[in-house]
Amino acid sequence: MADTAPQGLLVTAGKVHVPFKTELLNTLASPRFSTKPPHLVGILATRKEDARTYAEFTKRSCEQVGITFELRLVGEAREGMDHGGVGIDVEEAILEANNDREVDGIMVYYPIYGGRQDQYLQSVLSPLKDVEGLNHQFLFNLYHNIRFIHPLTLRAPSSASTLPLASPASGIERAPEGTVKSVLPCTPLAIVKVLEHIGVYNRMLEYGDRARGKVITVINRSEVVGRPLAALLANDGARVLSVDIDSIVEFSKRPSSSTQSSQFNAHHIVSTLPDDFKLANALAISDVVISAVPVQSYKVPTKDLKDGCICVNVAGEKNFEKDVRERASIYVPSVGVMTIAMLQRNLLRLCEYQDEAKRLGA
Amino acid sequence: MADTAPQGLLVTAGKVHVPFKTELLNTLASPRFSTKPPHLVGILATRKEDARTYAEFTKRSCEQVGITFELRLVGEAREGMDHGGVGIDVEEAILEANNDREVDGIMVYYPIYGGRQDQYLQSVLSPLKDVEGLNHQFLFNLYHNIRFIHPLTLRAPSSASTLPLASPASGIERAPEGTVKSVLPCTPLAIVKVLEHIGVYNRMLEYGDRARGKVITVINRSEVVGRPLAALLANDGARVLSVDIDSIVEFSKRPSSSTQSSQFNAHHIVSTLPDDFKLANALAISDVVISAVPVQSYKVPTKDLKDGCICVNVAGEKNFEKDVRERASIYVPSVGVMTIAMLQRNLLRLCEYQDEAKRLGA
Repeated sequence: MADTAPQGLLVTAGKVHVPFKTELLNTLASPRFSTKPPHLVGILATRKEDARTYAEFTKRSCEQVGITFELRLVGEAREGMDHGGVGIDVEEAILEANNDREVDGIMVYYPIYGGRQDQYLQSVLSPLKDVEGLNHQFLFNLYHNIRFIHPLTLRAPSSASTLPLASPASGIERAPEGTVKSVLPCTPLAIVKVLEHIGVYNRMLEYGDRARGKVITVINRSEVVGRPLAALLANDGARVLSVDIDSIVEFSKRPSSSTQSSQFNAHHIVSTLPDDFKLANALAISDVVISAVPVQSYKVPTKDLKDGCICVNVAGEKNFEKDVRERASIYVPSVGVMTIAMLQRNLLRLCEYQDEAKRLGA
Repeated sequence: MADTAPQGLLVTAGKVHVPFKTELLNTLASPRFSTKPPHLVGILATRKEDARTYAEFTKRSCEQVGITFELRLVGEAREGMDHGGVGIDVEEAILEANNDREVDGIMVYYPIYGGRQDQYLQSVLSPLKDVEGLNHQFLFNLYHNIRFIHPLTLRAPSSASTLPLASPASGIERAPEGTVKSVLPCTPLAIVKVLEHIGVYNRMLEYGDRARGKVITVINRSEVVGRPLAALLANDGARVLSVDIDSIVEFSKRPSSSTQSSQFNAHHIVSTLPDDFKLANALAISDVVISAVPVQSYKVPTKDLKDGCICVNVAGEKNFEKDVRERASIYVPSVGVMTIAMLQRNLLRLCEYQDEAKRLGA
C-alpha cells in the first residue's frame, strides 16, 4: 500500500536558487564587477574526499556566474607533499590572502584539525573577506540579533563594550543609512532562504517575526550550523527545539518587555526542557524538522514525525528515511546549491563593504 | 628493592610561587592599588564539583593577597534554579562584567558547554579584562610570537592585516617604549615559569631562546593548554613533541633565515613525524614530559621515560604512575598554585593596560 500512499512534495534547493542566481548575475553585470569580477580564494588543506568535491563544486558554481575562483592547496592537499602534514601552513595561507589586495573573499574547507583549532582559524580570517560568515564577530552579531553594522566596525572587536549602537533589528528589513547588513553564516542562511521559499516564513508578518507560531526541531547544535540556525530562527519568532547527542534545549524569542534590563538587542533566549522530553516528543509537535548530523547511520524516524510536517536534510548523507514523504508534506533533500549561492552573495556584499571602508578611509 | 631506589626530587608549585607572591604583594602595596584593590569577577555557570572547588581556591588565593574576588553565579550554579539549565545567561554575565567599570578582570570556570561554544565565550570576554589570556587576540599573538603590543590594540581585531608592526620577539625581555606585554594563557605560562624555576630554561642563553636544545613531550593539544604551551616552548627554542589521541606532531622554532618570505615574526613551525613514531619513541628522547590529560585512568608509563628526565603533571588526576620518581630526576605533581599566581599577575598587568588605554583616550 505504501507504493500508492500520497507522497509529500519534493523541493530541491535548485528551485529556490533561481531568483538568487538572477540577482547575482545582475549584480555581476554592473560596472563595479563587469570589468573586474570578484576574486574568491578557496584554501584546501586536507586530502579529505568531501572537501575536494566541495572545492570543485564551488569552482564550477563560481565559473558559471563569472566569479574568479582560485583554489590554493596547502599541506597534505599538495601533490607530492607526503610529509607536509595535515593543515601545515593553512594559517599562513589565510593571513596571506587577508593581506592580498587582489583577493576579495576567502573560504576554507573544514574540517582541517577539527574542533577548536578550526574555530581559531575561522577568527584568523579577516571579517572583511569572510564569505562563510564564521568569524567570531559575525557569530556574535548573529547571536545578539545585531543585523546592521557600520562598515568600519568590520575591523573592530566583537566585544559589545566597543560596538557602536546597533540599529534595533525588529521590523526593519533594509539597513539604515550608514550601516550595512552583518554577514550571516552560509549554511544557516541557506536554510532560512529555503524555509522562506517553501512558506515557513510568513511574509504577511513583520520582518523579524515571520517564523512566529512555528515549532522547529533542529538536530545538530554545532557552532557552524545548528546553534547559529537555532538562534536565527528563534530571533525570527520560531520556537526552536535544539537537539544534540546530550540534550534538548529550547531557543525562543525574548519578549521585548523583558529586555529593559539588557543593554543589548532583544534576542533569543535558551531554556532547558524537562529531562523526559526526548526527540520523539520534539518531533511530535514540530512543524519543521531540520537535520544536519554528519553520520551516515543517523536517521530521523519517519514514524515519529508529525503528519504534514516539513523536513529539510542538511547532511551529506541523508538523515531522513526513504519513506519520509509519507509523513512530510514537503521534503528538501539538500541545501548545498543554496549554501554556495549565499556564499556568493556574501562575497558581493563584502566587495561593497570593502569599497565603503576604503571610501571612509579605513 | 624499589623502596630503597634513589628517588627523583619532588618540587611543588608552592616553592616556585614564592618570588611571584612577593612581587605581587609589592605591587598591591603600591599607591595604585593600596586604596582600591583590583576587582576580579569569577563567573560560575555549572554545578560541576571541580569548577566550584577551583572557584573557592581562586577566592582564597585572592583574599590572601588582598585582591577583591567576587563570584557571580549563573544558570544551574544558582541555588534553587533547578530548571535554569547549564550555562544559561553566562554570555550576558560576561558582557555585563565587560562593561562594568568597577570590574578589572574576569575569569570564567570552564567547561560549561564544552568545545566550541566555550571557545566562542572566550572571545566574548573583553581582552582588556581577560586574566586567563584565552581571547582569540591573545592566542593569535602567542602563536605568532608577538610578545609586545600597543595597549590600544587590545580593542583591535587579531587579524594581522590591521596589527601595528609588532616588535620582534627574539632577544628582547622588556617591552619597548609605548608597548606592553601581550597576555599569555595562565596554565601554559605557569608551566613555563615552573620550567624556568627548575632549570629547564637556561638563563645563560638569550631571552627567547632559553629552552634551546631541550626535547619536550607535551601530552594534550587543546587550545587552552597543550597547543599554546607547545608553541610557547618551541618559540623559546625547544623541540616539542606534541601528543594527542590521534597523532604526534613536532613544534620547532622556525630558523630566522627562512622567515624572509613571511611578513610575520619568526615563530614555531609544526611538522609531521613518521607514522611509526609513537609515544614511547617520544618519551625515550624527551628531557621533559608534561602531561595534561583530564582522565583519571590515563598514565604515562614510567618504564618508557628517559632516565633522569623531568616530569610535570598538569591534570587534576595524576597522569604519572606512583613510581615516576624512580626514573625522573625531578617531578612536579601539580601547577595549580602557579596558575592562580599567573592569573593574578595578568590581572595587575591588565589594570595597568586599562590605565594606559584611558590615558591614551581610548
